[in-house]
Amino acid sequence: MENSSVFTRKYFLTAGESNAEGRMPLTLVAERVIEIATQHANALGIGYAALITRNIGWVLSRMSIEMYRYPVINQEYTIDTWIESYNRMFSNRNFRISDAQGNIIGYMRTVWVAMDFEKRTMADISSFDRSAFLLGDLECPIERTPRLRIPEGESVEYSDYTFQYCDLDFNRHVNTIRYLELILNRWPLEHYDNHIIRRFDILFHHECHFGQTVRLLVCNDGDEAIAAITASGNTAVNVAIKWAPLQNSSHTE
Amino acid sequence: MENSSVFTRKYFLTAGESNAEGRMPLTLVAERVIEIATQHANALGIGYAALITRNIGWVLSRMSIEMYRYPVINQEYTIDTWIESYNRMFSNRNFRISDAQGNIIGYMRTVWVAMDFEKRTMADISSFDRSAFLLGDLECPIERTPRLRIPEGESVEYSDYTFQYCDLDFNRHVNTIRYLELILNRWPLEHYDNHIIRRFDILFHHECHFGQTVRLLVCNDGDEAIAAITASGNTAVNVAIKWAPLQNSSHTE
Repeated sequence: MENSSVFTRKYFLTAGESNAEGRMPLTLVAERVIEIATQHANALGIGYAALITRNIGWVLSRMSIEMYRYPVINQEYTIDTWIESYNRMFSNRNFRISDAQGNIIGYMRTVWVAMDFEKRTMADISSFDRSAFLLGDLECPIERTPRLRIPEGESVEYSDYTFQYCDLDFNRHVNTIRYLELILNRWPLEHYDNHIIRRFDILFHHECHFGQTVRLLVCNDGDEAIAAITASGNTAVNVAIKWAPLQNSSHTE
Repeated sequence: MENSSVFTRKYFLTAGESNAEGRMPLTLVAERVIEIATQHANALGIGYAALITRNIGWVLSRMSIEMYRYPVINQEYTIDTWIESYNRMFSNRNFRISDAQGNIIGYMRTVWVAMDFEKRTMADISSFDRSAFLLGDLECPIERTPRLRIPEGESVEYSDYTFQYCDLDFNRHVNTIRYLELILNRWPLEHYDNHIIRRFDILFHHECHFGQTVRLLVCNDGDEAIAAITASGNTAVNVAIKWAPLQNSSHTE
C-alpha cells in the first residue's frame, strides 16, 4: 500500500467536521485531497522532504471535484489516489471517493506544478527518478479542469476582503482552503439547504499575502456560477461551480 | 485506555496544520481539546450518543489554555485529558500537552454544561450513572477561567463582522473555532512573529447564527488584552489573552 501506484485511506466524518446540513463540506473534500496527495508523494519518495533538498516543492495549480453524493455525519468514507500522468512540468493526480458500502460517490482531478523556490520559476521534474512516478491505472471519468474566465457584465456581484492572520499557512501565503471559503460564503445558508455542489473547478494563479485586499467577483447563471478573486487587477483564483438541487431536504439524509 | 480515568492521544503536527511561524496554532489546540474531550466522553459512555437519547448534549462553556511552548512543524505531541470534578450542572475537564520528549508544554481547563435541547435549559446530570464520571488524579496547576469584563473606554478598537455559511457547524450555530479566529485576527502577522500566546481564556455565553452581525471589541494593555464579541447588546463571547515575547525569532525554532 505505502509504495504502490494507488494509495488508499479510510476516514470517518465526525460531527465537528460536518457542515450545517450534516454532510462533508466541500472544503473538507479539498483538504483531504491535498492531504492524501502529500502522503502518497511522501510514500513514493517524491514528497516535500525529497524535493526540498533541491529547493523544489509541489504547488497545487488546478483542482476539480465532482460529487454525486457527499458522506454524511458519522459515516466512513474512503479515498483512493493515483498519478494519471506527468511531464517535465506537471503531475496529474486523480482521486476517487467511496462511501462505507464501497459505492463510488465522487472523483477529483488535480494538477501540480514543481516550483523552484529559489529561482521562483517552475522546476524541471524530468531529472527525478522516473521509477518513483508510478502511474495508477484506475479510471477517472470526469472532465479535466477547463479554462475559466473572469466574471463580467452587469450581473456580477462584487465584494472586498483583506486577508488576516488566521488565513495564513506555514508558507506565509493564504491557506488554499480559505480561497474556497471566500467564494462559497457568497451564497446564503438557504441555498445550501436546497442545493449540493455537483462540480467545483478551481485554478490557482497567484498566491495572496497577509494584509492584501482582494476583490471577489461572482456571477450566477441558473445552476452554474463562475467566480474569481483578483488582486490589484491580477487574477489570483478562478472558480466554476455547478449546483444540483437537493431531492431530499432532510439534513442528514 | 479506552475506559479509564485518563484518556491519552498522540498527534503529529503536519505542515498543513502549522501557522505562519511553523508552530501549532492556538485554534488547533482548542480543536484538539474539544475533539479529545468528545472521544473520552464517548469512551466513558457519557458522550453524544448516550446523552442525545434524553435530548441532552454537552456545550462548552469556558476554556483556558496555558502554553509554555507550542509543538513545532513535523513534531509529535501528546494530549492527556481527565475529569477533575463535576456537579449537577457542570463538568470540569482538564488537559495537559507534552512534546515528543515527554516534557509538559501546556495545560488546559474546560467547563462543560449539559444542555436540554428540548427545554433549552441546563440539564441535571446527577441522574446519570455516577460511576461513568471517573475522576482523573493528574495535576492541572493553572488557574481556573476567571470572570471577564467587556472592554470599555477610549482605547477599545471596534469592528463588525457578519457570519457566513462556512462559519457554521452541524448544529447550525457558529463553529467554536471561528470565534477564536475572529479575535486572533485583530492582531497583525508581525505581532505573531514576535509573541506567543502564553494564556488564552474564553467564556461562551450565547451562540451566534448565520447572517448575524456581531461587534468585536478589543482592548490592549501591554502584554495583556481583553476582547469580546457582542450581538445586539448581548455578550456572546469574552476573551482574555496574555502575550509573551518570543526570545527566538526563527520560525521553526
